[in-house]
Amino acid sequence: MTLPMHELSKNNELIKKIKIIRHTQDKDTEIADHVAVESPLQITINHKPISVTMRTPGDDLALALGFLFTEGLINDFAQVNLAKQVDENIVNIQLEDDITPTASIERNFYTTSSCGVCGKTSVDAIVTKSIFPIDQKNIAVIDDVLFSLQEKLLQVQSAFESTGGLHASAIFQPDGYYINHFEDVGRHNALDKLIGYALMSDQLPLSNHILLLSGRASFELIQKASMAGIPIIVSVGAPSSLAVELAQRMGQTLIGFLKKTSYNIYSGQDRINLK
Amino acid sequence: MTLPMHELSKNNELIKKIKIIRHTQDKDTEIADHVAVESPLQITINHKPISVTMRTPGDDLALALGFLFTEGLINDFAQVNLAKQVDENIVNIQLEDDITPTASIERNFYTTSSCGVCGKTSVDAIVTKSIFPIDQKNIAVIDDVLFSLQEKLLQVQSAFESTGGLHASAIFQPDGYYINHFEDVGRHNALDKLIGYALMSDQLPLSNHILLLSGRASFELIQKASMAGIPIIVSVGAPSSLAVELAQRMGQTLIGFLKKTSYNIYSGQDRINLK
Repeated sequence: MTLPMHELSKNNELIKKIKIIRHTQDKDTEIADHVAVESPLQITINHKPISVTMRTPGDDLALALGFLFTEGLINDFAQVNLAKQVDENIVNIQLEDDITPTASIERNFYTTSSCGVCGKTSVDAIVTKSIFPIDQKNIAVIDDVLFSLQEKLLQVQSAFESTGGLHASAIFQPDGYYINHFEDVGRHNALDKLIGYALMSDQLPLSNHILLLSGRASFELIQKASMAGIPIIVSVGAPSSLAVELAQRMGQTLIGFLKKTSYNIYSGQDRINLK
Repeated sequence: MTLPMHELSKNNELIKKIKIIRHTQDKDTEIADHVAVESPLQITINHKPISVTMRTPGDDLALALGFLFTEGLINDFAQVNLAKQVDENIVNIQLEDDITPTASIERNFYTTSSCGVCGKTSVDAIVTKSIFPIDQKNIAVIDDVLFSLQEKLLQVQSAFESTGGLHASAIFQPDGYYINHFEDVGRHNALDKLIGYALMSDQLPLSNHILLLSGRASFELIQKASMAGIPIIVSVGAPSSLAVELAQRMGQTLIGFLKKTSYNIYSGQDRINLK
């Protein structure tokens, strides 16, 4: 059974245009580029908070209903009385009066990530405050060091090479000296292992270090790096819009799309020296 | 301040050897290959469950401590009385008697994913039962169709091309006809949008469909696909160990590393016809 579609979620822009520094052939050029939009969505059932997910806006009703269905909390659209976009970042699913969720909400979820979001939209509102503010003056890195990082990680990252299925987080000194790396199927786990190791061995804050991420840079990874006081984050893949906003807000250097002779600077250009 | 390291997590194998079917140059060959290990870890504080994450085993104490630190629940290793691997899939962090977590545990997390795991290790124990069992006989697909899917997705997936930062989930008919796709910074969100759309438009179960994933295939994605009754899952990237186990358990066809003239079959070879 189906109900009418009530109210379609606005099909928001998936991408956002921002100004970045493109570094290629020993030259920095300011260009306009696009990043994928990332922002928090809170899903509520009968106005009770169930989940917050970092998503790309658009099709939020489908996202909320698909989430509840695939988690086993509803099993038929006929159980839904009204699916409504309450505001930009909250969707409420009102169940029919005689329906209670088919699985225990408390028992049925596991958490993977940071922050008490609750439908707030500003970076300030969702960020967990770090006890290690980013030192704005401490380190600089030359671009030849940046170009060397990925090769150094590949030399030690054996499991990734054989499966293509693991993410890595690695830390280096500003001169490019490799310190340590951790691998995991979850990129947030790889970074948590790295920071947990630093916590256990009394190396926090990592304020004189470069973090290399083997994949994309999401809000969550920048958030975790900022908790550890890491000033320079280099990712092999793309950053999200919220990752860029947070790095700018925290005064971190964020580099993306690191390749053999080029990269993009999204934040904190001051820490990069061309020679 | 630091404490002694108590008990080091076993450094488990990051990868697992399995038998797969390698399809290349119109030929199927059974070979041994490696997949990244994925299994659930429950983190508890003073034996109270805080979080379950799907991780690659190894460095579990560092993972648990790094998670609690980056989430703002502890801010110094001196607050930890004992970090202990309770069993293969549970780590308990015992805080010093006078320490309460620095942030509200209830308020401070958001959930992103499936299943009531609680340190159980078998696939059966962590899977959410689907109301749509996979039909074991319904569809077959020829390999030329598989090779066409990625090109078809790229034609419609404009945002990904311009940012490199979005994941996509797409559904096709067995003859390769494109039906729909959704994009998101989170791959689980892209799939939830797809399944939510099918729920709203009365198209569940998707028992006569092929699902294409633009990236890697984790347990969570196979779980969601099985909730929607999807029999064939094709991923451009690598599957995890638990994704393979779940697809086999559910009787789904799982293909990984889809390229222009080759792919790997991890489960359900019967649904693939060479001509």
